[in-house]
Formats: sequence, structure tokens, C-alpha cells
Amino acid sequence: MIGIFDSGLGGLTALKALHRLVPGEELIYFGDTGRVPYGTRSADTVRKYASQDAAFLLSQGVDAILVACGTASTVALDHLQKTLPVPVVGVVAPAARAAAAATVNRKIAVIGTPATVRTGAFPAAVRALLPDAEIISRACPLLVPLVEEGFTAPDCEITRLACEHYLADIRESGADTLILGCTHYPIISDLISSVLPGVTLISSGEEAARAAAALVREPRPGSAPIRYYVSDDPALFTSAAARFLGSDTSGRAEKIDVDRFAV
Amino acid sequence: MIGIFDSGLGGLTALKALHRLVPGEELIYFGDTGRVPYGTRSADTVRKYASQDAAFLLSQGVDAILVACGTASTVALDHLQKTLPVPVVGVVAPAARAAAAATVNRKIAVIGTPATVRTGAFPAAVRALLPDAEIISRACPLLVPLVEEGFTAPDCEITRLACEHYLADIRESGADTLILGCTHYPIISDLISSVLPGVTLISSGEEAARAAAALVREPRPGSAPIRYYVSDDPALFTSAAARFLGSDTSGRAEKIDVDRFAV
Repeated sequence: MIGIFDSGLGGLTALKALHRLVPGEELIYFGDTGRVPYGTRSADTVRKYASQDAAFLLSQGVDAILVACGTASTVALDHLQKTLPVPVVGVVAPAARAAAAATVNRKIAVIGTPATVRTGAFPAAVRALLPDAEIISRACPLLVPLVEEGFTAPDCEITRLACEHYLADIRESGADTLILGCTHYPIISDLISSVLPGVTLISSGEEAARAAAALVREPRPGSAPIRYYVSDDPALFTSAAARFLGSDTSGRAEKIDVDRFAV
Repeated sequence: MIGIFDSGLGGLTALKALHRLVPGEELIYFGDTGRVPYGTRSADTVRKYASQDAAFLLSQGVDAILVACGTASTVALDHLQKTLPVPVVGVVAPAARAAAAATVNRKIAVIGTPATVRTGAFPAAVRALLPDAEIISRACPLLVPLVEEGFTAPDCEITRLACEHYLADIRESGADTLILGCTHYPIISDLISSVLPGVTLISSGEEAARAAAALVREPRPGSAPIRYYVSDDPALFTSAAARFLGSDTSGRAEKIDVDRFAV
């Protein structure tokens, strides 16, 4: 059984990919909807929240944890790997590998939350693979609220302007590959591509799902159930989750008090 | 000593007004920066967070509490007034009184967070004073992130588009008075006025500050200290607080674990 957590809904993009890769594996998802977003908070607070999220998943008996949140992966992964008794996979290394494989001109761009960009984790992971890569990174604090509030239509003028605002320097740089360092961003990949035509987009959540699937030694047959937990009202989750899961929503979620859990 | 709390920074607009009205009164501010925003969460979660915020202020010995958060005021004020041993003032009744006094054509508009608009608290408070008023209300979930991220310049195209998007129906309605039902909104009042020229804006935080000041029976001379507490990194608070307090920032804040408090 694999546990997956995110600050909110973005991790559902990784969950969906993981279920497609290992459909027989039981999955359990926790979205910290009572404390989303993580990306504008301090590193200490993100580490505290991520530890509580992981502690809840451990209490459910998971064998491995996928940190399907760009912010928690860049800020708290080391901490979780040191303190937890199960394998923990984050989005950084898998996304860096995919970007290094995809780039032709060795110019790679990264977008993420402010907390993610402050860590420099994505550039460091890319440089470990391609020491001479030119890397440009940019924090995009508005994109998570825009996605969470449903401003996701390909012709949405507000989100397009926000993308223009955040991505102008990246277009200028000539990067041929862009890491979507936050699991919310694939929802607006069409808009991002319209601002950066011809650039290869790397979904960090999908790449992380591949890495998590590789932990499953003996895939089971059939389609195992997925359980959903949240820290705010499940009704709010169900309506918003449809945007991320599309028609795959089986989506009844249960509410838990995550702040009672401790590693 | 009066305690003031908000989900984050918006309540600083009320704090500033209150300090101006009763400069000799000790004030203590708590901004729940570790769990902001409140306006997109469920009523149960907002009530839980507001109770913890108030419990922290009580632990500091406050004689009264100003709920300087539109969401907590509309969702949790009754609950706080029933459970707390000190007077509790929110933003709804004071803003409704000011709007009822200001309107000429009895068409009043209200903007707030999704949680606030769901309660219908502002329309109900206005109707109690002006039963024949025509009231239109609109949730504006993006405005809080736009303000928190500093997209507040009067010529900011993204925020202007968001205002156009949210305020078109209100312009259409012919309302002559608009209640800013969230304490973040006064920061972009110029932009709101450019979309709704000639409409009187009511700052719910300032009106609430007047109501809280009226609780002070014997104003003390001099300028009493203001203490600031937050639930995330104080450094993040200090830099952002300048946007709300302007040059008034004395602004060292201290971090507390608000989720440990209970009423």
C-alpha cells in the first residue's frame, strides 16, 4: 500500500498516474485541504505539516510514501527520509532526470512555489546530472490559487496574463524544457504551452509517480481501491477533485484531524 | 488590552485604525499566517481555527476581542460570543450600519470570500436595518492571494482584470455603496474604485475598529505598545506587513503554535 500526500489537490495528478501504472496496488491519498497552500509558508512550517501528513499515512499502514507536493518535496524530503521507517519518494529527482533526458540545448527552466524556489532543490538536482546546464527558475505564487479556484480554461485571460508575467524571462532565456515543479501546474499546461510554444513540459507529479511505481516489486492484478482523506470538509474536496481526476473520480473523502498526528 | 486576530495580514488594516482611535490602549495582534487563507475553507474548520486564535489571545489576558477577519466574523462570531468570557466584536454589524447610513439609492453590494458569501451574514445585517434594500453579493476568492502576493499597484493589469471579472454584475446593478467584506480589500481600494467609479466603499475593518474602540470606557493617555504574534515565520510577516501598515510598522512578531490552544 502506497501513501500519497499533497498540500491539497495538486497531488491528484500524481495519484492518477500512479494508479494507471500499478492499478493493483492499494493507494491512500491525503490532501491537507485545511492548511493548503504550503508554497507561501516557511520551511519550518512546511516540515511540521509534512511530518504530520506522513505520520497519518503511516498510521494507516503504508509501505511507502510518495510526496506528491513540490513544496514538501523540496523543503522536507530529506527530513522525512531521515525520520520515517518506509521509503519516501519526492518529485525533485524524478523530474530532474526527465528534464535532463529531454533537453537538447541544455537550457532548463523550473517553475514552482516561492518556498520551492528558495530551496534551489530543482537546479541542484539538474546540475548533478548535467553540470553545464543553464538553469533559470521562477516562483509563481499566484498559479496555485488560480488553479484551485478553477481559472483553468485555455482561454482564461487572467491566468494567461499571470503566465505571461511569470514566464517572460523564461521565454527570453531560450530554455527548451520546463519543469512544472508544483503538482498543480499540469492542469494549466495548455496555457503554459501557449506562452512558451515548443518548450517541453515535465510534469513533476507524473515523473514521481513512475519512481513510486518502481518500488512495487510484485505488481498485483486487478484494480485496487483508492482511499481519500482530507483535513477540511470532504464535500469541498469532491467538487474540486473532479478538475484533477476528470472522470476517474470515485472520490468520497473522509475528514481527519491531521494536526493530532506526530512522527 | 484588546486582542485582534485575522487569518493573516488583512486585519492589520483594522489594527491600524484601532490604534489611531485609542492610542493609549494596549493592543495585541495575532495573524494565523501558518493557516491563511480562511475564506476558502469550510465553516467547521473556520470555527475551529477562530476558537484557537481567540484562546491564544485570552491566554494573554485581553479584555475584549476584535475579529478583524471577514470570514471568521461571518462564520464564527456567534460561536465565539457564546463561548468566550469577554466581549467579541466582528466586522459585520459595524459595516452594515455604515453601509445603511451611506447609501442613497438603497442598492448595496457586498464582496467577500466564498465562506463569507455562503453565510449571507452581510445581506442579513443590512436588511435588519433597511428592510427594502436591494443587496447583491459576490465571492472574490482570488483577491486575497492577489493582495498577499503584492499585486496591489493601481495599474496592475492582473488584479484589474480580476476586479472586472468579479465586479461586472455589481456595476450592472447600479449599487451606490460597496461593503469590502474582507479586511484585505482596502489595500486595493483604488483599483476597485476604478472599476466602480462613484461607488462609496465601506472598509469593514475600519468600521469594526470604531466599534471596538467604543468598548474602551476610559481611554488612557499616551501611545501604548502593540504586540504581534503569528503562526508562521515572523520574518515572512515583517516584510509583508509593511504593505498593510505602511510606515507604522514597529513590527517585530513572535511565533506561537496556535494549534495547541483550545477554548
